[in-house]
Amino acid sequence: MDEAACRRFQRSVEFAGRKWNGAILLAGVRGARRFSEYRATVDGISDRLLAARLKELEAEGVIERHVKATTPVTITYTPSASGLQLIELLQPLVEWDAGHMAAREGGDAARDAG
Amino acid sequence: MDEAACRRFQRSVEFAGRKWNGAILLAGVRGARRFSEYRATVDGISDRLLAARLKELEAEGVIERHVKATTPVTITYTPSASGLQLIELLQPLVEWDAGHMAAREGGDAARDAG
Repeated sequence: MDEAACRRFQRSVEFAGRKWNGAILLAGVRGARRFSEYRATVDGISDRLLAARLKELEAEGVIERHVKATTPVTITYTPSASGLQLIELLQPLVEWDAGHMAAREGGDAARDAG
Repeated sequence: MDEAACRRFQRSVEFAGRKWNGAILLAGVRGARRFSEYRATVDGISDRLLAARLKELEAEGVIERHVKATTPVTITYTPSASGLQLIELLQPLVEWDAGHMAAREGGDAARDAG
């Protein structure tokens, strides 16, 4: 991996890993569309922070904001193609985490018994 | 993806994406072993923060610390099997970032010309 690729790697992993970004995008992939649905799905996030992060994710181009001229207006947030791709390529982390935690617990148990 | 998997996803993407964690692990995968080599490879990190993060990455089990009883003592840091796996599964982010940035620049150019 050359220097430019390393910078891309660091930028994208730190963007995806920024607190709440992954959870918000994942909520969108799992079907959340309205602010209240994201709020209900992403445990522990405040309204203020969710609003700020949705704006950032939209500016970054991984979430699209849609406004329907209903009364009152309906605003929805949908992962973009790029956002969907990002979540898809990060999904193996779930399995990694399971294996990693199991290995750590195994290591801890061995040390305790040692 | 069920709730437990979502929590694993959020925990692991926020761990991997925590500022500097990805870059430090990547430096180890690219051959850094001594503190000074990590320091030289990871642009912009301070000694204090690198020391703290190496300790955290070791505690998390993705980096192993080795002490050789030379004079003076030689201390090296090597990605664990789990750490290597993590970096490997995150590598597609480099390609994602390239495609994502190109799409964004394309979008911006279209808007400017519009």
